[in-house]
Amino acid sequence: MVLTKKFIYAKRVEGEPKETDFSLIEYDLPVALNNGEVFVEAIYHSVDPYMRVAMGNHPIGTTMIGGQIARVVESRNDLYPKDSIIFGQLGWQTHSIFNPVNNKDSIQTYVLPSFGELSVSLGLGALGMPGNCAFFGFLTVCKPRPGDVVVITGAAGAIGSLAGQIAKLKGCKVIGLAGSEDKCNRLINELNFDHAINYKTQNIPQTFQQMAPDGIDCFFDNVGGTTSVEIIYKMREFGRICVCGSISSHNSDASTVSPVRIVQPAFVTKQLVMEGIQAWQYADKWMDGIQQMLEWVSDGKIKCCETVTHGFESLPKAFVNMMKGGNFGKAVVKSK
Amino acid sequence: MVLTKKFIYAKRVEGEPKETDFSLIEYDLPVALNNGEVFVEAIYHSVDPYMRVAMGNHPIGTTMIGGQIARVVESRNDLYPKDSIIFGQLGWQTHSIFNPVNNKDSIQTYVLPSFGELSVSLGLGALGMPGNCAFFGFLTVCKPRPGDVVVITGAAGAIGSLAGQIAKLKGCKVIGLAGSEDKCNRLINELNFDHAINYKTQNIPQTFQQMAPDGIDCFFDNVGGTTSVEIIYKMREFGRICVCGSISSHNSDASTVSPVRIVQPAFVTKQLVMEGIQAWQYADKWMDGIQQMLEWVSDGKIKCCETVTHGFESLPKAFVNMMKGGNFGKAVVKSK
Repeated sequence: MVLTKKFIYAKRVEGEPKETDFSLIEYDLPVALNNGEVFVEAIYHSVDPYMRVAMGNHPIGTTMIGGQIARVVESRNDLYPKDSIIFGQLGWQTHSIFNPVNNKDSIQTYVLPSFGELSVSLGLGALGMPGNCAFFGFLTVCKPRPGDVVVITGAAGAIGSLAGQIAKLKGCKVIGLAGSEDKCNRLINELNFDHAINYKTQNIPQTFQQMAPDGIDCFFDNVGGTTSVEIIYKMREFGRICVCGSISSHNSDASTVSPVRIVQPAFVTKQLVMEGIQAWQYADKWMDGIQQMLEWVSDGKIKCCETVTHGFESLPKAFVNMMKGGNFGKAVVKSK
Repeated sequence: MVLTKKFIYAKRVEGEPKETDFSLIEYDLPVALNNGEVFVEAIYHSVDPYMRVAMGNHPIGTTMIGGQIARVVESRNDLYPKDSIIFGQLGWQTHSIFNPVNNKDSIQTYVLPSFGELSVSLGLGALGMPGNCAFFGFLTVCKPRPGDVVVITGAAGAIGSLAGQIAKLKGCKVIGLAGSEDKCNRLINELNFDHAINYKTQNIPQTFQQMAPDGIDCFFDNVGGTTSVEIIYKMREFGRICVCGSISSHNSDASTVSPVRIVQPAFVTKQLVMEGIQAWQYADKWMDGIQQMLEWVSDGKIKCCETVTHGFESLPKAFVNMMKGGNFGKAVVKSK
């Protein structure tokens, strides 16, 4: 028996998530493994915007979803040896027993490659789902060319901060949007962005007129809503838009989000392409993405920013804070 | 000297175009050709929705733009022999002298291939720009597979009526939207569409729930606006959207069009792709498109519907009528 903690959905979420949307449960997990099963203990938990959407879809009383980095404590599965470090979509719980899907294209659980001296927490960020969304999404959908003007919304977030740095590596001019002066300064000073826009205080069309007078080639969108439409109308012919998220509408019923100007005229006039992505569509080349990102991070070409909160019990607070924009880079929670 | 008629922009258009937005001018055109020049007389003129957008961009007093099918009356250009039938982007005028661009990728002017017993007016429709927008746009962007559910807005228009028939040839289930009962009946009875929706009287989300309960794979959009957003939210994972036009906003300043629900959540959730197209991006394979469409039309596999108005002086009336949805299929004006 192992004393295990988990968070469950306490009630149906409405609007911005609150700490009281979750209940902490403690229970004794019997550790008696069947053949093929693995027993793991969480080290780091992830809090991500997509979880807000998922909260609306799961029954009250079930375990909150979420990825974690965990250590294998006991194993009856040769592919998951004792003491190996894994990623698992195991939810907000401290200990888990599971039988890994034996499918190379599944990214539900997998053993991490060695990160050398880097923190295993990066397996939730630059060397995991956010990294691969930035890597595959930006490169395959936005198709950046040297000199292209690239705009990133949610640029200070887990995925945006990486997509912008990848764009710089590809020789692009990068403009990031974020929600505070401090974030904007860090994008420029720490992450090498060319420009940053505080979308809460600056006039977006006017600012683009100055920063990108000839228009925008690539748009990596984590936010959606009015800002995205204003950016779309500033794009150049044959511009490419990757829709990775729509956090502006995550806290609302989609039918109640503020209406926006239609985008079809811009699509026809400029012959734009827009594509929505999700991480799992890159599952068959997942490790290739992680290896490339690992190389860039190890060489210092990409900086990993993390906002770390401590203690399993802090998960709801860290999640609520991240949804309010309180993080810079990847928000994670260290379990102990 | 040849007495020539043309229409010029009489004033700045506002809202729906009116016949009084144009002035008829008569003048004597001196026919003295330089080497390389061609003198042509119009047979058929085209009226198309895109012209409404162009009207806002051209100076008052200049000739109204537009494609025409014309006969070469005199030629000092071996590529355009006397009596050959050409397409030319020559504007609303009865006679023209021009020096063809000697560039195989230009579609400003070209000699039509032989249409056999078919009307040369089809060079403005199924065997011209609308045909190639439907052919290349639908096939390359929507990537139809047999059994796919395909939705076409503006389905009774020049391009939509062809895109729907191409979709049927590819084994798809085709649902067309149009603005009257009569058009809906003709889509089903004459053009072999599976379903038709009168967008002015039917509830679109409810109707799709019945006609396409498992969702939509391909969306060929000529209209934009609220209807398009409702369709986008009914799409299936990895759905493909070709934005060929946005006629719902053609009569308005884009900033005054009724705002709509944001589409980014649908793009992320369903990993949709949307691409805007224009005819000229297919210029390098233009004749291949015409040849394939010619084969289908000659074999009776695609029906060409035309709404023909007679007399050059009727051009403004025919254009205004087409913009109000008065046409079924391609709207053309016979010059004499």
